[in-house]
Amino acid sequence: MIVDCHGHYTTEPQQFKDWRANQLKLVEEGSFRPTAAELQVSDDEIRESIEANQRRLQIERGTDVTIISPRAVGMGHHLGTAETSMEWTKLSNDMIARVIGLFPENFIGVCALPQYPGVEPKNCIPELERCINDLGFIGCNLNPDPSGAWWTDPPLTDKWWYPLYEKMVELDVPAMIHVSGSCNPNFHHTGAHYIAADTTAFMQLIVGDLFADFPTLKFIIPHGGGAVPFHWGRYRGLAQDMGKPLLDDHLLNNVFFDTCVYHQAGIDCMTKVVPTKNILFASEMLGAVRGIDPETGHYYDDTKRYIQDTPSLDDAGRIQIFEQNVRNVYSRLKI
Amino acid sequence: MIVDCHGHYTTEPQQFKDWRANQLKLVEEGSFRPTAAELQVSDDEIRESIEANQRRLQIERGTDVTIISPRAVGMGHHLGTAETSMEWTKLSNDMIARVIGLFPENFIGVCALPQYPGVEPKNCIPELERCINDLGFIGCNLNPDPSGAWWTDPPLTDKWWYPLYEKMVELDVPAMIHVSGSCNPNFHHTGAHYIAADTTAFMQLIVGDLFADFPTLKFIIPHGGGAVPFHWGRYRGLAQDMGKPLLDDHLLNNVFFDTCVYHQAGIDCMTKVVPTKNILFASEMLGAVRGIDPETGHYYDDTKRYIQDTPSLDDAGRIQIFEQNVRNVYSRLKI
Repeated sequence: MIVDCHGHYTTEPQQFKDWRANQLKLVEEGSFRPTAAELQVSDDEIRESIEANQRRLQIERGTDVTIISPRAVGMGHHLGTAETSMEWTKLSNDMIARVIGLFPENFIGVCALPQYPGVEPKNCIPELERCINDLGFIGCNLNPDPSGAWWTDPPLTDKWWYPLYEKMVELDVPAMIHVSGSCNPNFHHTGAHYIAADTTAFMQLIVGDLFADFPTLKFIIPHGGGAVPFHWGRYRGLAQDMGKPLLDDHLLNNVFFDTCVYHQAGIDCMTKVVPTKNILFASEMLGAVRGIDPETGHYYDDTKRYIQDTPSLDDAGRIQIFEQNVRNVYSRLKI
Repeated sequence: MIVDCHGHYTTEPQQFKDWRANQLKLVEEGSFRPTAAELQVSDDEIRESIEANQRRLQIERGTDVTIISPRAVGMGHHLGTAETSMEWTKLSNDMIARVIGLFPENFIGVCALPQYPGVEPKNCIPELERCINDLGFIGCNLNPDPSGAWWTDPPLTDKWWYPLYEKMVELDVPAMIHVSGSCNPNFHHTGAHYIAADTTAFMQLIVGDLFADFPTLKFIIPHGGGAVPFHWGRYRGLAQDMGKPLLDDHLLNNVFFDTCVYHQAGIDCMTKVVPTKNILFASEMLGAVRGIDPETGHYYDDTKRYIQDTPSLDDAGRIQIFEQNVRNVYSRLKI
């Protein structure tokens, strides 16, 4: 079985996006009141949006299950108010619950969290519990910078985040460390903010000692870990200069990387330096890059090909990456 | 000849660092007035600080010339005031002039610019002219985020920067796009801010069309280009999705990467995907990582070894990276 641990519902019906636009417009006008969502989306519309896209690509590429979460840029934790973020996040998670209800063999849910800049992460706990306990989700996406590329909240190692981590440990669910959109004109969202945030999060974990306090907490750093495998020597060396333990002991029982790296040489670099047990198959589809690579004739994000072709893995290693590691990290995955 | 295009004077005599600390203390007390620097550093002290460090390592590693600039983190453009930044930058560049005066065979200068957040980059032009015309320097370091990891100034493609670019083109000098320290607790300086900024700068250049306006402007993105070579497929794909030309045409006549990547697999990834003409040898010594890699028994930042051992280059390619490309980009290099 091939499990893709990083997919987003980026093909939502138009009225879903319209609902969000209207919500933000009401906030701007000062007339927003939380209401039972008036959104009308039929099962058929959801089914079609998946069958024509994510499910079609699963079949074409030969993957079986995608761990799917709401559109990352779409969460926009920095937009509106804490109240709108809460309502929008619940609605987004409900939509994921409908997707997995319609495709129980092929999609399993991960939730967004109702974060808002400057608001304590512990406010996300009720929604996390609802998604795990009531909706059957198996993890969450955690935004290390809900300000949208202004980085005004504390680092991931700060006690600010601890109540949420305690709940994650209790529920035995991992978090993918995934930012949302950027409202800072310096940072393109998928080309700069995502990759910079992945790199920054890893370095925060090197500097801190979070997993001494939470030995069973698990994070997935997406997009191949940002720059981390490419600069593996720098990170090993920085940890060494700081007197930290080897990365194997300091972080690699708790931190994992996905394979959303869209060319062979990148995957080859990653599989050469990162222990195989720390690599989880993912494609991010339909995500940041949607075209066909003219150099290969295949979709850039058809990452299964790169894993199959990388010289640093044997068949057992490929099985680990395609399935076993995902099951180890997302322990609630039962498909 | 082997030319290292990225070195910093990170072994300055103590009184130089004390002078800066005192300057910032005076600002805080409200009693700073620009004065002729009272700094006393002898030639012997400078000579010793280089001979025991950068020059010793050149000899041990078999490199010939280092393009040296003031300590990057040390510039701290976000500290003090625009006035102190101007004075400190001039003093720092003067110190580099003394280094290259003492070691004319082995070191050549690149200047820091007296940037300050919110102050127009054109204010840097007189100091750039002084360093190039009077001190014999061959380029500058340009900080894309003088706020120190708060990213409050406009992107590199904004017209805000154009007067400085016009002067760079007139003088025929390139800029290394190099941030300074971080005062945002989310970003470790050498482990997160540097690498994130390199990546972010490249993406700004993809989104914009700067080199249509400045066809001869040249930028070096240090630290191997941040995450860029590792995510080469992502960047090719994003440019393609945006309808931009191929990176070869869009950026690669103007943008170059150094080799400050501290392990073999990283350099192998880079030399495989980035055209050889766009790679400039560099080690950043003495820089971010100072230890010896227990996996190889060599210094992490002894990057010459990785270039020599990478399978994607032939001898002609190595000569390009070690010397020719540096001469092409830094056209004023005459050693």
